[in-house]
Amino acid sequence: MNQLTGFTYDEISIGQTASFSKQVEESDIQMFSAVSGDVNPVHLDEEYAAGTMFGGRIAHGMLTGAVISAALAMKLPGPGTIYLGQTLNFSRPVKIGDRITAHLEVVAKRDDKKIITLACEVANQDGKIVAIGEARVLASPKKLLIDRPPLPRFKAVD
Amino acid sequence: MNQLTGFTYDEISIGQTASFSKQVEESDIQMFSAVSGDVNPVHLDEEYAAGTMFGGRIAHGMLTGAVISAALAMKLPGPGTIYLGQTLNFSRPVKIGDRITAHLEVVAKRDDKKIITLACEVANQDGKIVAIGEARVLASPKKLLIDRPPLPRFKAVD
Repeated sequence: MNQLTGFTYDEISIGQTASFSKQVEESDIQMFSAVSGDVNPVHLDEEYAAGTMFGGRIAHGMLTGAVISAALAMKLPGPGTIYLGQTLNFSRPVKIGDRITAHLEVVAKRDDKKIITLACEVANQDGKIVAIGEARVLASPKKLLIDRPPLPRFKAVD
Repeated sequence: MNQLTGFTYDEISIGQTASFSKQVEESDIQMFSAVSGDVNPVHLDEEYAAGTMFGGRIAHGMLTGAVISAALAMKLPGPGTIYLGQTLNFSRPVKIGDRITAHLEVVAKRDDKKIITLACEVANQDGKIVAIGEARVLASPKKLLIDRPPLPRFKAVD
C-alpha cells in the first residue's frame, strides 16, 4: 500500500495543473448503472443503442463527472479535498474502450473563504473534448500523508 | 422485464416534477471508487474517516450527482434524454445507510433549441438538503416504450 498526499491551500497557485485518466470499460458502465440506478438501454443494451444517434452504447455523463471528481480528490488538491460544487457541460459521448483524461487548472483562489476554483476539461484518447466545467473546492488545511486504500474490485453476478 | 417510457419535449410543462430515490450502501461507495478511481480513505477507510470532520465514511459527492442523472434518465424526461449540462452545489455529506432522494422540477423550456432546464434538489432521509443544482437536457423527440434492462449486479472480489 503506497501513500497519498495532496496540496494545502497555501501550496496551491493560480495556473497549477493536474490530470487523471481512466479507461472506460463495459464493467464500469454496468457498475455505474448499479450504483446510480440508471439502467437506460443506451448504456446497457447494445442492440437498442446501435439504433440511436450514438450508434452504440455510451457511458453515463456523470461517469465523466466522476473522473473529474477523482482528479480533484486524488491529484489537485488531493486527499482532504472538500467538494463544494461543480458545473458540467457535456459535449460528446464516451464509448466503451475510450480513455478519458480530466485536466484541471487552478483559475482562482478566494483567500477569505479559502475556496479554490479549477477549470476542468475532459478529453478522450483522440483529444476531443467530452466535457468541460468548473469545480469549487476547499483544500486540506494541513498536509496529509495517508495510506492509499486498494482499489475495490468487483465481479458481475449473473 | 418491464418497460420504460418517458416524456417528449411537447409533453413536458413548466412546474412538472419527478423524484428518484437511492439507498446508499457500503458497496455503492466501493463500486463508485472502482468506477471513478477515487480511493480516498474518507470513502473507504473507516478508521481514517472517523478522525475527519465527518466522523465516518462519506459517499463521493458525484454519487449524489449520479442519482440526479438517474432521476433525469429514468423519470423526467426519462429514456432518450440527452444530458447537456449540470450544476451542483454540495451542502452536506451522505453517509452509508442514508437514503437520498433527487427531486426534479421543470423550470424552463427553450422552444428554439428544445432545451429543458430542471431544478434539482437532493435530500436525505431527514429531509436535509445534501445538494442542489440545475440540469439542462434534451428530451426524446419521439415517445419511447422500451424494455427495461435488469439492474446489473456485482459482488466484491477479495
